[in-house]
Amino acid sequence: MIGIGVVGYGYWGPNLARNFSQIDGAEVVAVCDGRPDRIAAAQKIQPTLRGYGDVGALLADPDVDAVAIATPVTSHHPLALQALQAGKHVFVEKPFTSTSAEGEELVAEADRRGLTLMVDHTFIYTSAVRKIADLISDGSLGRLYYYDSVRVNLGLFQSDVSVMWDLAVHDLSIMDFLIGRSPVTVAATAVAHVDGQPENMAYITCMFEDDLIAHFHVNWLAPVKVRQTLIGGSERMVVFDDVDMADKIKVYDKGIILDQGDERAYQRHVGYRTGDMWAPRLDNIEALLIEAEHFVDCIRTGQAPQSDGRAGLRVVRILEAATRSVAERGLPIPLD
Amino acid sequence: MIGIGVVGYGYWGPNLARNFSQIDGAEVVAVCDGRPDRIAAAQKIQPTLRGYGDVGALLADPDVDAVAIATPVTSHHPLALQALQAGKHVFVEKPFTSTSAEGEELVAEADRRGLTLMVDHTFIYTSAVRKIADLISDGSLGRLYYYDSVRVNLGLFQSDVSVMWDLAVHDLSIMDFLIGRSPVTVAATAVAHVDGQPENMAYITCMFEDDLIAHFHVNWLAPVKVRQTLIGGSERMVVFDDVDMADKIKVYDKGIILDQGDERAYQRHVGYRTGDMWAPRLDNIEALLIEAEHFVDCIRTGQAPQSDGRAGLRVVRILEAATRSVAERGLPIPLD
Amino acid sequence: MIGIGVVGYGYWGPNLARNFSQIDGAEVVAVCDGRPDRIAAAQKIQPTLRGYGDVGALLADPDVDAVAIATPVTSHHPLALQALQAGKHVFVEKPFTSTSAEGEELVAEADRRGLTLMVDHTFIYTSAVRKIADLISDGSLGRLYYYDSVRVNLGLFQSDVSVMWDLAVHDLSIMDFLIGRSPVTVAATAVAHVDGQPENMAYITCMFEDDLIAHFHVNWLAPVKVRQTLIGGSERMVVFDDVDMADKIKVYDKGIILDQGDERAYQRHVGYRTGDMWAPRLDNIEALLIEAEHFVDCIRTGQAPQSDGRAGLRVVRILEAATRSVAERGLPIPLD
Amino acid sequence: MIGIGVVGYGYWGPNLARNFSQIDGAEVVAVCDGRPDRIAAAQKIQPTLRGYGDVGALLADPDVDAVAIATPVTSHHPLALQALQAGKHVFVEKPFTSTSAEGEELVAEADRRGLTLMVDHTFIYTSAVRKIADLISDGSLGRLYYYDSVRVNLGLFQSDVSVMWDLAVHDLSIMDFLIGRSPVTVAATAVAHVDGQPENMAYITCMFEDDLIAHFHVNWLAPVKVRQTLIGGSERMVVFDDVDMADKIKVYDKGIILDQGDERAYQRHVGYRTGDMWAPRLDNIEALLIEAEHFVDCIRTGQAPQSDGRAGLRVVRILEAATRSVAERGLPIPLD
Repeated sequence: MIGIGVVGYGYWGPNLARNFSQIDGAEVVAVCDGRPDRIAAAQKIQPTLRGYGDVGALLADPDVDAVAIATPVTSHHPLALQALQAGKHVFVEKPFTSTSAEGEELVAEADRRGLTLMVDHTFIYTSAVRKIADLISDGSLGRLYYYDSVRVNLGLFQSDVSVMWDLAVHDLSIMDFLIGRSPVTVAATAVAHVDGQPENMAYITCMFEDDLIAHFHVNWLAPVKVRQTLIGGSERMVVFDDVDMADKIKVYDKGIILDQGDERAYQRHVGYRTGDMWAPRLDNIEALLIEAEHFVDCIRTGQAPQSDGRAGLRVVRILEAATRSVAERGLPIPLD
Repeated sequence: MIGIGVVGYGYWGPNLARNFSQIDGAEVVAVCDGRPDRIAAAQKIQPTLRGYGDVGALLADPDVDAVAIATPVTSHHPLALQALQAGKHVFVEKPFTSTSAEGEELVAEADRRGLTLMVDHTFIYTSAVRKIADLISDGSLGRLYYYDSVRVNLGLFQSDVSVMWDLAVHDLSIMDFLIGRSPVTVAATAVAHVDGQPENMAYITCMFEDDLIAHFHVNWLAPVKVRQTLIGGSERMVVFDDVDMADKIKVYDKGIILDQGDERAYQRHVGYRTGDMWAPRLDNIEALLIEAEHFVDCIRTGQAPQSDGRAGLRVVRILEAATRSVAERGLPIPLD
Repeated sequence: MIGIGVVGYGYWGPNLARNFSQIDGAEVVAVCDGRPDRIAAAQKIQPTLRGYGDVGALLADPDVDAVAIATPVTSHHPLALQALQAGKHVFVEKPFTSTSAEGEELVAEADRRGLTLMVDHTFIYTSAVRKIADLISDGSLGRLYYYDSVRVNLGLFQSDVSVMWDLAVHDLSIMDFLIGRSPVTVAATAVAHVDGQPENMAYITCMFEDDLIAHFHVNWLAPVKVRQTLIGGSERMVVFDDVDMADKIKVYDKGIILDQGDERAYQRHVGYRTGDMWAPRLDNIEALLIEAEHFVDCIRTGQAPQSDGRAGLRVVRILEAATRSVAERGLPIPLD
Repeated sequence: MIGIGVVGYGYWGPNLARNFSQIDGAEVVAVCDGRPDRIAAAQKIQPTLRGYGDVGALLADPDVDAVAIATPVTSHHPLALQALQAGKHVFVEKPFTSTSAEGEELVAEADRRGLTLMVDHTFIYTSAVRKIADLISDGSLGRLYYYDSVRVNLGLFQSDVSVMWDLAVHDLSIMDFLIGRSPVTVAATAVAHVDGQPENMAYITCMFEDDLIAHFHVNWLAPVKVRQTLIGGSERMVVFDDVDMADKIKVYDKGIILDQGDERAYQRHVGYRTGDMWAPRLDNIEALLIEAEHFVDCIRTGQAPQSDGRAGLRVVRILEAATRSVAERGLPIPLD
């Protein structure tokens, strides 16, 4: 039985506690939060939970084998480092860290100690993203041409991080999982429309080798909720619409064939092979539960999580480059 | 009665002929096309039409008071210049010209001769764009924050121009009309996925003074047709969805109010005033007809068309800067 | 403090318990279910809850002031009657009862004892239905012409009741609330496609005085989920789409004007006044919570609930007539 | 070369003329309309067309081999009869005739003379309906359970026929083609909300043997345009949405499996096999052109058209029964 300690019981912490408590072979044994009312809220649901106001006390609890950290990003590095140094496995919210240097240190520390370090890239554990991954890996899409993502909403402004670190982190983690390699350059433009607040909208462009391009529009200040990703390949294209409850994924059996026949004076068309659309059935399982099970499995087996510290670090490097590009007015920043 | 000569009877020419022939006070009297079968096609519909294989002959026809040019963009400048020099008013397809230098020469020539020079920015004559213009000019949207446009389709590849000159020209002309001022810088990224073909997808970012940002995604190679523009203002936001036959324009009565009350440790939200949505009724009139009437009116009255040569030139300047930015890997190009 | 006892802890009972426990001035004190595992499930969430395997024991508990009954419809009458006779206020799931005679007896018993009797017509407590009620009562829709409802889904078959008693009960309760008077006749057609199962699809037609017609399509066996109601009035029309998360209610500013001018030989059109569409903002509050508060308020004040036993009875009478009409192959059955 | 005479050049006649004139082996040679301006309008498009104010004169024209009748329904019978008696093949608008007696007489007359008699059931010549027909005939849908159609719009009121004869005729002709057998009974309810006008909304229910049910909602007075048909079968279900430009037909790979395992006290569910959705590519060809070619082919070969007089008659019989049912307040009327 692996004992889990939840660090931070604000918005997301209760979800972690609820999912980890449903897993065979794991048990949520303690919660840590500086606010006594949050401890009380946690204990109302699970009275046997030990509450700690201080993370040092939680880490000293011998029943805690692993911690799940759901605190603001700036505290991820110190908390995770302290936990690793105390010999605890670590599950940490996204974005992994505030800087790539912090992320590198955590990855190295976990490696050194042989501990599991996992970042909560929830979306890669959804049925939808899994299905797209299958379509890419089995060649259904052909060569990838582009990845175009829009995530906009009239939602909550965050005052501690920009919209890129708040929203684009989701899409970058999905892209990292699906494409499986890092971009060569990252360029970004972002604007803050509310005085004293971080940037509320941004466009990020990632260029890969082989003319693969990825582009992200994230926006806290839109009139409608859009969560749409277009993935274009040489053989098929995918529309992933995460607000479409009925048909989240549509696969279009369309590719290009160069039309050699028609040589008109001012216009030569590229012909199209246009075929059917197919919307595969998706399982309806909570991704966070899958993910929590995966974390516990990785602790047991020692295998690297699919969203391990290295994956978290790759996403942070893109965000870091994007932040630098914004400061340099859209200059493409090489990665590495 | 103003006599119109249509130059170029390919894909768009017949639409021009059909609309100009419906206007009181104008008459389509001649058509010019190097291909005899196209002349024949025009005369099948209107047997009295004079057919010319050569533009010089058409311009020599004393019944031709104005020409409507629907030929590839590279020929716009020589044809329009020849027509203006022959004393004819000119209506020319978009993009206005291939370069801003060409556009400047045409504007100067028309000015010098007191002739009407109009560019076919069709969309600015639609009920939808007119309605948005009203909402902006009467202050309903408040201060403009952003203009975000997506125009993608599994459509025709053009071999003579890139997707920016083919598709973005529509959106840039709408933006030019709605925003009423030119951007300060233009940055763009574009990719060609088919060997030997021009760029088939592009992202263009225009920065204005006052943190207004405009962004355009154009794509010939998408699985679905999207024609959506989000316009965010401090008071209201507009969604303009040109493929929604029922509700092309939706106005969201939503703005931001800073929420001062809630000072949580790691997150301070910006509050929202969230209100109703309103989809105004739009007239169902063919924009090209409105536009053709406007051209004839401008010839009569001497007033400048709403999409005059200067408007065409402003759009060409943005396209030119975008093209340069693509060549310089996304560098923002200042617009004089 | 009003003590609530929940009778039946299957699918819906936990929702009742959760909502009643959130209300100031009420407290869920006991639960009754014949299945020990269900009692255990309830006590896992709220350990202080008293569990009873038998309703007599629950009714004998002096801390139970009111019961919330979430059991199969056939048991509503005996359980509610027993509770009323024990002096308890009663909140009962829909459909109210299996027959109108049962419903009449409960209404009479509650009246006699001065107890609150309320039926869980959840939908009438939603923001959407409330907004439509306002639009009708303030005259915005004009004279009502029709009420057309579709509620279909590839959902669960129920083996104890037909699709009419399972799904149409929702729509009939909404219609009863919105229209505020009972139909004159009820006709229905229903079909069972699965051997040994009740009817899985049905069409119900209610005729009112003044040519108001209401029609209901309910279906357990559809490929897509549809929850759409069209309400046509002389001044405006409403589309209520309960699966549209963004715009549940759309109000169309369209009415008819007879066009007297155009007297063509074989066709005379009725002209239309066609105007804007408006989607009002709706509060996002859980209807069941509103409803639970309303029940507790009614107990305190003695006022009749909006969905009192009489409302439940009116709906049962329509279902009863519909059932009879099905047996008589669609014959319209007069109400009363 | 088969010479076609178009009788009636109002709203639909020009479409017939345009399509028949595009067919190899046919030629539109004459038009008949009592209104000289309509003759002139036809001749403006095709100057060689002979114009007749009187149908007798047109029928006397030896170049006219077949007539296409696009006049109000009440004149279909006398005009078609006169044409058949003059030895002309007949293509006639829907509804075929005003009564089944009229239809029978035309069918008999055409049979007697060996002439082609075809009714313009346009929809059965669309790619969408053809595709559904294939899915039914190859067994993909399994046994048919229901056919549910909604055709509503804020459209034109017709003063000469009710909404059933104007709109339901489309859906009944599609159903007749797809199901391939006639219903056993027809019941209908219809209401007129505008004084002096025919019924503007109606519900029609057709019962077949084997518990197949078909239901139609037609409405001139709706706020939104809906053209949706659900077809439920034991193996798969189809959604045919004629206003969805992208995905008119969606096939759901969903059927029922009786779940024997779960025997809960008050609820036994029928299990579902739930699978993928598939939207087949459809050709984009104008149905009326296909239909016009089919008419000409049938004249040449002597084969019966797919929408021959008998098909027209079957639809008229259903409309006639529906009309009678409306008069008898929804009584199911047996066919035959």
